[in-house]
Amino acid sequence: MADSDAPLRIAVAGASGYAGGEVLRLLLGHPRYRSGRLEIGALTAGSNAGTPLGAHQPHLLPLADRVLVPTTAEELAGHDVVFLGLPHGQSAALAAELPESTVIIDCGADFRLRDAAAWTKYYGSEHAGSWPYGLPELPGAREALRGATRIAVPGCYPTVSSLALAPAVAAGIVEPIVNVVAVSGASGAGRKLDVGLLGSEVMGSARAYGIAGAHRHTPEIAQNLSAVAGTPVSVSFTPVLAPMPRGILATCTARTTVDAAQARAVYEKAYADEPFVHLLPEGTLPQTGSVLGANAVTLQVAVDADAGLLVVIGAMDNLTKGTAGGAVQSMNLAVGFDETEGLSTVGVAP
Amino acid sequence: MADSDAPLRIAVAGASGYAGGEVLRLLLGHPRYRSGRLEIGALTAGSNAGTPLGAHQPHLLPLADRVLVPTTAEELAGHDVVFLGLPHGQSAALAAELPESTVIIDCGADFRLRDAAAWTKYYGSEHAGSWPYGLPELPGAREALRGATRIAVPGCYPTVSSLALAPAVAAGIVEPIVNVVAVSGASGAGRKLDVGLLGSEVMGSARAYGIAGAHRHTPEIAQNLSAVAGTPVSVSFTPVLAPMPRGILATCTARTTVDAAQARAVYEKAYADEPFVHLLPEGTLPQTGSVLGANAVTLQVAVDADAGLLVVIGAMDNLTKGTAGGAVQSMNLAVGFDETEGLSTVGVAP
Amino acid sequence: MADSDAPLRIAVAGASGYAGGEVLRLLLGHPRYRSGRLEIGALTAGSNAGTPLGAHQPHLLPLADRVLVPTTAEELAGHDVVFLGLPHGQSAALAAELPESTVIIDCGADFRLRDAAAWTKYYGSEHAGSWPYGLPELPGAREALRGATRIAVPGCYPTVSSLALAPAVAAGIVEPIVNVVAVSGASGAGRKLDVGLLGSEVMGSARAYGIAGAHRHTPEIAQNLSAVAGTPVSVSFTPVLAPMPRGILATCTARTTVDAAQARAVYEKAYADEPFVHLLPEGTLPQTGSVLGANAVTLQVAVDADAGLLVVIGAMDNLTKGTAGGAVQSMNLAVGFDETEGLSTVGVAP
Amino acid sequence: MADSDAPLRIAVAGASGYAGGEVLRLLLGHPRYRSGRLEIGALTAGSNAGTPLGAHQPHLLPLADRVLVPTTAEELAGHDVVFLGLPHGQSAALAAELPESTVIIDCGADFRLRDAAAWTKYYGSEHAGSWPYGLPELPGAREALRGATRIAVPGCYPTVSSLALAPAVAAGIVEPIVNVVAVSGASGAGRKLDVGLLGSEVMGSARAYGIAGAHRHTPEIAQNLSAVAGTPVSVSFTPVLAPMPRGILATCTARTTVDAAQARAVYEKAYADEPFVHLLPEGTLPQTGSVLGANAVTLQVAVDADAGLLVVIGAMDNLTKGTAGGAVQSMNLAVGFDETEGLSTVGVAP
Repeated sequence: MADSDAPLRIAVAGASGYAGGEVLRLLLGHPRYRSGRLEIGALTAGSNAGTPLGAHQPHLLPLADRVLVPTTAEELAGHDVVFLGLPHGQSAALAAELPESTVIIDCGADFRLRDAAAWTKYYGSEHAGSWPYGLPELPGAREALRGATRIAVPGCYPTVSSLALAPAVAAGIVEPIVNVVAVSGASGAGRKLDVGLLGSEVMGSARAYGIAGAHRHTPEIAQNLSAVAGTPVSVSFTPVLAPMPRGILATCTARTTVDAAQARAVYEKAYADEPFVHLLPEGTLPQTGSVLGANAVTLQVAVDADAGLLVVIGAMDNLTKGTAGGAVQSMNLAVGFDETEGLSTVGVAP
Repeated sequence: MADSDAPLRIAVAGASGYAGGEVLRLLLGHPRYRSGRLEIGALTAGSNAGTPLGAHQPHLLPLADRVLVPTTAEELAGHDVVFLGLPHGQSAALAAELPESTVIIDCGADFRLRDAAAWTKYYGSEHAGSWPYGLPELPGAREALRGATRIAVPGCYPTVSSLALAPAVAAGIVEPIVNVVAVSGASGAGRKLDVGLLGSEVMGSARAYGIAGAHRHTPEIAQNLSAVAGTPVSVSFTPVLAPMPRGILATCTARTTVDAAQARAVYEKAYADEPFVHLLPEGTLPQTGSVLGANAVTLQVAVDADAGLLVVIGAMDNLTKGTAGGAVQSMNLAVGFDETEGLSTVGVAP
Repeated sequence: MADSDAPLRIAVAGASGYAGGEVLRLLLGHPRYRSGRLEIGALTAGSNAGTPLGAHQPHLLPLADRVLVPTTAEELAGHDVVFLGLPHGQSAALAAELPESTVIIDCGADFRLRDAAAWTKYYGSEHAGSWPYGLPELPGAREALRGATRIAVPGCYPTVSSLALAPAVAAGIVEPIVNVVAVSGASGAGRKLDVGLLGSEVMGSARAYGIAGAHRHTPEIAQNLSAVAGTPVSVSFTPVLAPMPRGILATCTARTTVDAAQARAVYEKAYADEPFVHLLPEGTLPQTGSVLGANAVTLQVAVDADAGLLVVIGAMDNLTKGTAGGAVQSMNLAVGFDETEGLSTVGVAP
Repeated sequence: MADSDAPLRIAVAGASGYAGGEVLRLLLGHPRYRSGRLEIGALTAGSNAGTPLGAHQPHLLPLADRVLVPTTAEELAGHDVVFLGLPHGQSAALAAELPESTVIIDCGADFRLRDAAAWTKYYGSEHAGSWPYGLPELPGAREALRGATRIAVPGCYPTVSSLALAPAVAAGIVEPIVNVVAVSGASGAGRKLDVGLLGSEVMGSARAYGIAGAHRHTPEIAQNLSAVAGTPVSVSFTPVLAPMPRGILATCTARTTVDAAQARAVYEKAYADEPFVHLLPEGTLPQTGSVLGANAVTLQVAVDADAGLLVVIGAMDNLTKGTAGGAVQSMNLAVGFDETEGLSTVGVAP
């Protein structure tokens, strides 16, 4: 599809939300957009339909005058690629109305889990199925994404947590019982009107939520790591909301008997050729501010010999590599572009 | 001492730092200060000596014109209570020059660890000894503080981590291997000129530091929990710097076989009579913003049944209960005041 | 009333909002509350009625279990003092149903403006009248508040702006045309569900709003300054939302012909005896962080000789001196307490 | 120069500072860098020489291993373009040692002011001279930059303030007496070790500094506006530090007799063809978060009819359009590239 002369035509459903906005930001910087070989078509919204995009995404100046249309299959039809940034549960019905040849990239959760029981336990509704999983760095995932027309973009926490732990789990250097405590910025909750997300409440405060297995990303992390391990991996996950707009800093631990050099070697090998996952030099620790707006995960690995623990720290921008960047990366693979086009590992700092 | 007619005379060494400033903030609100039975005497500093306190602590308006004097035994002599907010390694020499009857309350680390080897491993210098430990909520600690004239104020991370885990460890409901990931505000690092602590670097970013057992608070947490357990407790500790001035949110986990109700019962019993440690109602999670400026630790306890883990979340202000509040609480005990005088559990929010 | 033996009984309407929460925070620290001579009675709410206060104000630990009741005259009856922290337009009807002897202190706008036309222009509804204005530091205001039973608490911006400019205007050292640009934290907008107030939108961003005379506090500032000047004062006012929970930093300018020393002398004289307004030493500039949680306004005054302008900078906590602190200060005057009881000029910093 | 086959070779002096880091960030995204026609050569530093760039600018992952060399003419020689991000006073000596044909783009202040007396008054040293001023949007400036080999990048405050006021001043619709109150993020102060810039001090607080004409950007704004007006313009300038890493929100006022429509027409005409200055739709107000990382200034213009004032609000990223973006824009003009290459108006939000 990408080789034809006609420009690739892209729609974004949920364009007034954070995921949709970030997809558009990346598309505006995509070299194929600049060269006219990629067009931004319909921008849809729910209650914001009828208003200009600029009223909701004032940072997307070149598209400020574009008027949002309702999120319907009719509006989304006629595009080569459709990004979905919708509330959970809305993707399946829309997808069913679009041609099979349309590349649908769902930033929502609907098609992430392969286990119907886990879906129902965590989301409370019927399982819609599962789509190829948009985390190319996981074993086997990249191949499944080439030419795919249905893609489930991973959750933000699962992206960084899975990338932080997969090499160790795959190499069998840790017990299959992992602990993830991940600090996230507020945009991870989406553009949701909730008292607890007001600036006055968020600033100056850190708080945990969804503890003790309650967060919906828990089974997704377990799914990824179990697949990599070839055996069930138990996941304890604690998300913490921190006063920043973006970013996830994940602290991942598991019991190990290897030493630091052995652990480092495992990670060096795993990510030597990955463009978007960087093992930092020894002694350098990841920080979310360094990957702001970047399609990058930075990692550091250490061993706490006294405690017998592998400690892996990962930093990522939840909206970029954790959502929209991963989505564009998957699109690149799906339509035959170079995987890295339009995606940068350079963050905006300080 | 507290019953005599003469007002209690208090000096603060290191008055231009964060610990010293917070001690003074609390003393200014102490009812005995208001009633004239507690006097604020010498305020000392290192390189800031000779300048007015207001140049460094503009929030302490009533003391703004007080001029800082050098941190010497001469200046500190003649006070009933001396708070030390000094860099590590300076307390022992000063204390040796002050009368044994002077109540010295050290907000620094010098006298926290009882194990000389652990001290040398983590601080690199000779062990100065250990003083009664200013965490009254630990078993036996309160009694040791009554009438004490030398007190080591706990580190901020150890305060919240120990209070979060001590009941479980004491009750034997968890394995003696615990994991603490604690998010802290920037003031925990003190008023230190360090590029990594500049506002531009801190805001909008989270980063881990001192991972894999490297942080000096690790042996202190282990010391506290091991004493409570009566057996060595292994501690994995990861501190994370978050973009807020104050506050620690600690996520503490350990393997357990009890259920949520059993765990909750242990904590309810442990802290039923403690004025400054609050187990929140079920379903309510601690947040640091709620305890800003308060001498309070709020806790929630849960069990992740799938992972077989006890999860305890604790929130605290690192400068108040985590440093200066704990110091004043210890002072109250040492001089015979009511333990809660001048200390509030009410935070400044939002 | 305050001299009788029975404790003063206080109700707070709108206890789940920011103004109501801050009134309660201050009352919990009031020495008469601690000594049992001041009781906290009914706590009311709108849609939050029926839920515990702790669900909304987790920082008010001692009152966490108190259940909110509906905001009705019945619930508010039987109290000596009623604080109102309600949306605009609800106070008049409630007040009409309460006895004239009840001290009603309205943190809302309904009774602030004396000019009915200005009210209608800015608020769009019929003018309810005006009550004694709770800014004791303005000429004549303190006397009117002693024994008052109806008090209108000033707006937050008008408090700091009026105090910053009143001495200059009263002394006639500036043209009666003033310019105020004031940076405010997000809590100034109240606990309102608005996308623009979400943490993700507020953090890392500054934005103006209500510019060019559109903000409702404009006529209130003009009213105060005109009364002080004895002649109409024209006010240009620009509010700016900054990424912090609390605080207002006001930059106030007006053309002048006096020099810096003359200007300083005017301010020194004006506020020499005021407990809550502090002219900082020369060269020291106000910062909002220094007055966090304090009932204090800090000022600095300078003259830009080249531009022929008086420049006055004022810092204040919008929720404390700007709302609830001013309200409690007015209550103290109204019921015959010492004006400063329960109010501190010490901020929580850093 | 840009048309030759050899790639353009660029050096950055002061690469471990904020200005240097932002120049590098933009160069890494420049299409000519991606296509190999622009090379990043020497990266120099002062005390950080000898260390890898990644230790200071971890967000510049592709250059992380590059080792910083000392800031000397020898190291900078042999490059086509040299960006200087140095402390004030170091540029002249370096520039004198480099060939006249080298394009030197100074992000510091040394060559901004044309008035030697103003320089000495504000900077205290001898005037080094003045270079073509890198603000292409000012009348006549663009032409002077084409082919220039010495360029002075404007200060951050002068960039947004001058762009906000120039059209009104040029059109004569305001009195030549202007007032600017500008809120800035902390990176505007550079990567400077200063207690007042520590995260603990900056977060949660706003403070003015350099008031009443003391800030060095005052004469630069006056220079720009006076040149545009053809008559001296008096400038009152108040900078305010707000708790955010980046961004300037400037509130600019001046007395006017025109109405809002007339004022808007002036600005529409002035910036109709400017790629990086956007007059927002009526009713939409600029916010710094929308231009984070973007080479854009967003403006809104209004008239406060009651006060007889023109009010112009401008938002900008101080490091991008306010420093490094303006520098790259000037480089593009100087070497004959399209002015907009490598520069985006799309911000990173939320």
